[in-house]
Amino acid sequence: MFLGRVTGSVWSTVKWPAAKGLKLLLVRPYQLGDLPATVAGAATPETAGMKPLDDLVVCADLLDAGPGDDVLVAFGHAARVAVAEALGPGQKPDAPIDAAVVAIVDRLELAKR
Amino acid sequence: MFLGRVTGSVWSTVKWPAAKGLKLLLVRPYQLGDLPATVAGAATPETAGMKPLDDLVVCADLLDAGPGDDVLVAFGHAARVAVAEALGPGQKPDAPIDAAVVAIVDRLELAKR
Amino acid sequence: MFLGRVTGSVWSTVKWPAAKGLKLLLVRPYQLGDLPATVAGAATPETAGMKPLDDLVVCADLLDAGPGDDVLVAFGHAARVAVAEALGPGQKPDAPIDAAVVAIVDRLELAKR
Amino acid sequence: MFLGRVTGSVWSTVKWPAAKGLKLLLVRPYQLGDLPATVAGAATPETAGMKPLDDLVVCADLLDAGPGDDVLVAFGHAARVAVAEALGPGQKPDAPIDAAVVAIVDRLELAKR
Amino acid sequence: MFLGRVTGSVWSTVKWPAAKGLKLLLVRPYQLGDLPATVAGAATPETAGMKPLDDLVVCADLLDAGPGDDVLVAFGHAARVAVAEALGPGQKPDAPIDAAVVAIVDRLELAKR
Repeated sequence: MFLGRVTGSVWSTVKWPAAKGLKLLLVRPYQLGDLPATVAGAATPETAGMKPLDDLVVCADLLDAGPGDDVLVAFGHAARVAVAEALGPGQKPDAPIDAAVVAIVDRLELAKR
Repeated sequence: MFLGRVTGSVWSTVKWPAAKGLKLLLVRPYQLGDLPATVAGAATPETAGMKPLDDLVVCADLLDAGPGDDVLVAFGHAARVAVAEALGPGQKPDAPIDAAVVAIVDRLELAKR
Repeated sequence: MFLGRVTGSVWSTVKWPAAKGLKLLLVRPYQLGDLPATVAGAATPETAGMKPLDDLVVCADLLDAGPGDDVLVAFGHAARVAVAEALGPGQKPDAPIDAAVVAIVDRLELAKR
Repeated sequence: MFLGRVTGSVWSTVKWPAAKGLKLLLVRPYQLGDLPATVAGAATPETAGMKPLDDLVVCADLLDAGPGDDVLVAFGHAARVAVAEALGPGQKPDAPIDAAVVAIVDRLELAKR
Repeated sequence: MFLGRVTGSVWSTVKWPAAKGLKLLLVRPYQLGDLPATVAGAATPETAGMKPLDDLVVCADLLDAGPGDDVLVAFGHAARVAVAEALGPGQKPDAPIDAAVVAIVDRLELAKR
């Protein structure tokens, strides 16, 4: 998974039923080099001084994340499992998506460097 | 998924029945750093000042996208699902492709930075 | 998929029956930034001025591609499907390879930039 | 797999039962260029002078790794297998995660360059 | 697959039976830009002047490769197939690894540039 910040939303025209109604977010990954050394203390990504990179990932979101939220994004089968589970346990994870929010970050704890 | 602009087409010689007749597009990914901060307003990628990168992806397209369109592209199993669904629900997603257009972008909404 | 040029061959010692006899090619990816704007005209990668990058992919080839050919290469399951289909429809795509030529490029058509 | 150093922990809000309770770590990959040539001797990553990159991966951990540990991280199905095996042999590897610690590094042995 | 040189070994603590006893190697990928043009002649990676990059991949090896050997490495399912086949045809390729040596390179043949 990668750690990123939600920075926008995408509205699009889709044709597959499994993908219709899926909320799509723009997420920018963080880079660890922006993290300050801390004394095993607690810091959210923002207070830790992390700056998002220029990379851009579009991912499905069923966790009600919004702009400014820090999230964990998974790719591939893991993303389809995340989307399928919310649609019902009997459905196969076959949505035509390859990235999804799998968690909303509450807190980071960093080791000294 | 990534957000990109359709910038051309590819004609090629294929031998697998599942891939014959598939329209293949050249797509250039966008980079988020090109996006201006907006007041939670609506902006298409173009009006938002996004510039495509030099990277290049060839993907199958069943959504009738064309040059200048902004699209979402998925990789791997998601791409084969997208292609298979259009060919009939009983077919296994086994086309020898690993990228496909899964949506045509109508609108982006960006958070303030 | 990515667009690349065949630039060499690899001879190697393998132990898996499914991989023995597979032709292995060295392929260099192209970068879209090298493409000139054209008036919706037709151009092969070479006449369009594309230059290959330094990256290097080794892929299986069942399409009889050779040095100087421009090809489309797919990764993962798509590559194994491409190899398996040529070996017979009943075989599972379980060759220990993760990249294969899936098409030989005949022509590119580029949009104006 | 890649070789990286554990540099922190992530606490997050998840909704999938399979992911609840999973410990999530921040891991920084090493780059081989930082390794000194050694005379086929033994060296841990630290004594070998390796410096972690700025990249950042969030991965599940069932091996009780902690800050400062050097670990091997695998992606995709391999990561879900690693997590599933610890949960019981009958469970399908369908946790919505795409990266996990698969080994804790005891020792590296480097060839002369 | 990618072409790389074996540059070291990793000893680690693992807990999954399928991964215990697997030899783990450090492999550095080659970059094609280091290859000289040759007259369709034969050249090993070393005599061709290839220099490995700084990237670093840890992969399982069942082909008895050692430091200085040039190998082909595959990722994902292909790597698990490579490892499983050596363990017996009835076993599912579910080792918690995502990279493996799939061939030892004997010879490269490069096209003129």
